[in-house]
Amino acid sequence: MAGELNFSNEIFSNFAFYTCVVLLKLLFLGLLTTVKRITKGVFANPEDCKRFGDPDKLKPIFNDAGVERVRRNHLNDLENIPAFIFAGLLYVLTGPDPSTALWHFRVFAAARILHTLVYQLELQPWRAIMHVVCLTVTMSMLVQVLMVAKY
Amino acid sequence: MAGELNFSNEIFSNFAFYTCVVLLKLLFLGLLTTVKRITKGVFANPEDCKRFGDPDKLKPIFNDAGVERVRRNHLNDLENIPAFIFAGLLYVLTGPDPSTALWHFRVFAAARILHTLVYQLELQPWRAIMHVVCLTVTMSMLVQVLMVAKY
Amino acid sequence: MAGELNFSNEIFSNFAFYTCVVLLKLLFLGLLTTVKRITKGVFANPEDCKRFGDPDKLKPIFNDAGVERVRRNHLNDLENIPAFIFAGLLYVLTGPDPSTALWHFRVFAAARILHTLVYQLELQPWRAIMHVVCLTVTMSMLVQVLMVAKY
Repeated sequence: MAGELNFSNEIFSNFAFYTCVVLLKLLFLGLLTTVKRITKGVFANPEDCKRFGDPDKLKPIFNDAGVERVRRNHLNDLENIPAFIFAGLLYVLTGPDPSTALWHFRVFAAARILHTLVYQLELQPWRAIMHVVCLTVTMSMLVQVLMVAKY
Repeated sequence: MAGELNFSNEIFSNFAFYTCVVLLKLLFLGLLTTVKRITKGVFANPEDCKRFGDPDKLKPIFNDAGVERVRRNHLNDLENIPAFIFAGLLYVLTGPDPSTALWHFRVFAAARILHTLVYQLELQPWRAIMHVVCLTVTMSMLVQVLMVAKY
Repeated sequence: MAGELNFSNEIFSNFAFYTCVVLLKLLFLGLLTTVKRITKGVFANPEDCKRFGDPDKLKPIFNDAGVERVRRNHLNDLENIPAFIFAGLLYVLTGPDPSTALWHFRVFAAARILHTLVYQLELQPWRAIMHVVCLTVTMSMLVQVLMVAKY
């Protein structure tokens, strides 16, 4: 059962749970962008201005600080979350120690959620620290996969 | 056979088919960007202007409305398609009802293709509706995975 | 054993190795962005300027040519690397010829690394050629999956 993609494999089941958590966090940033755009009346497409915006502000705006902050946060997630999930899937298949694996997933998910929080609250060096924590977890799993994989 | 990543598992086979469809749609937007850039002579890198552009327009341009629209569309795909595929892969492994699963995949793929179409045709509120449909499918699969996964 | 996601399946093991290689390359671009931002003092967030920047240059800068080039390169990776990994995972499960599969992975990984190199060295038409090579590999795998998958 070790190293199988099956919910009766505890490691895989934990991986699936934390993958869902970080994907929900990723999708949440899309919703936050929409909420910020509508409440501020800041849109990137003329048809959005017409449909959802104030009739007096009908031009796209590309430099609103609040909206751009959420967009940078979202892009940072895209740069890191898929890499974590791919690395994690391969890592599960190496049949790692269950407790070590669980802590990899837990630490990444917690650091990624805190990363979003401190990004929106404009807190440095916390954002940098959370970013390094996430990178370290992904790198650790990649190295462990490379030690098992043939080239 | 239920819940296995194997082409003789009908649910997985359907998932693989619709994954290919949405990935081809994603890659198509990359090609559309290239076509728009070359036909309009709008490039982001000086070396592209020199190699592919009009000798009279040798400066990068970052604010062409047509090119930027395709780029926003492409980024939106990156925000949603990998999340769907990850969620779908885990969902297949929960061993769902084949017909329910098939409709999840079909609705997402159809809504994502229509999303691109109405994005390029500048049609609102259709783009918002297609976006919500895609999000709902991904969320539905994530919730079903969370109900099976251990934490 | 053919078509199984197991490190004793040689095709999967090769796939896992090259997936790690391209993910490390993707994460490397994130580090390169950070290095360029810090050495040039070019940041996107006011709190980053305050924490890591020169006290005389406290405003975010969004148009530094060097930083923007790395960022475009990074986004291009996001548009292509996850698609390759998803396509590759499904392709492994079709049970392809081991040698053909290995060359798909090798060519993609090599072309993607060279793509980054020539992007940063501003070399055209080499960047376009590497991009087409990567796309061709991903498309080839997607077509082979579509030939096996049910719809």
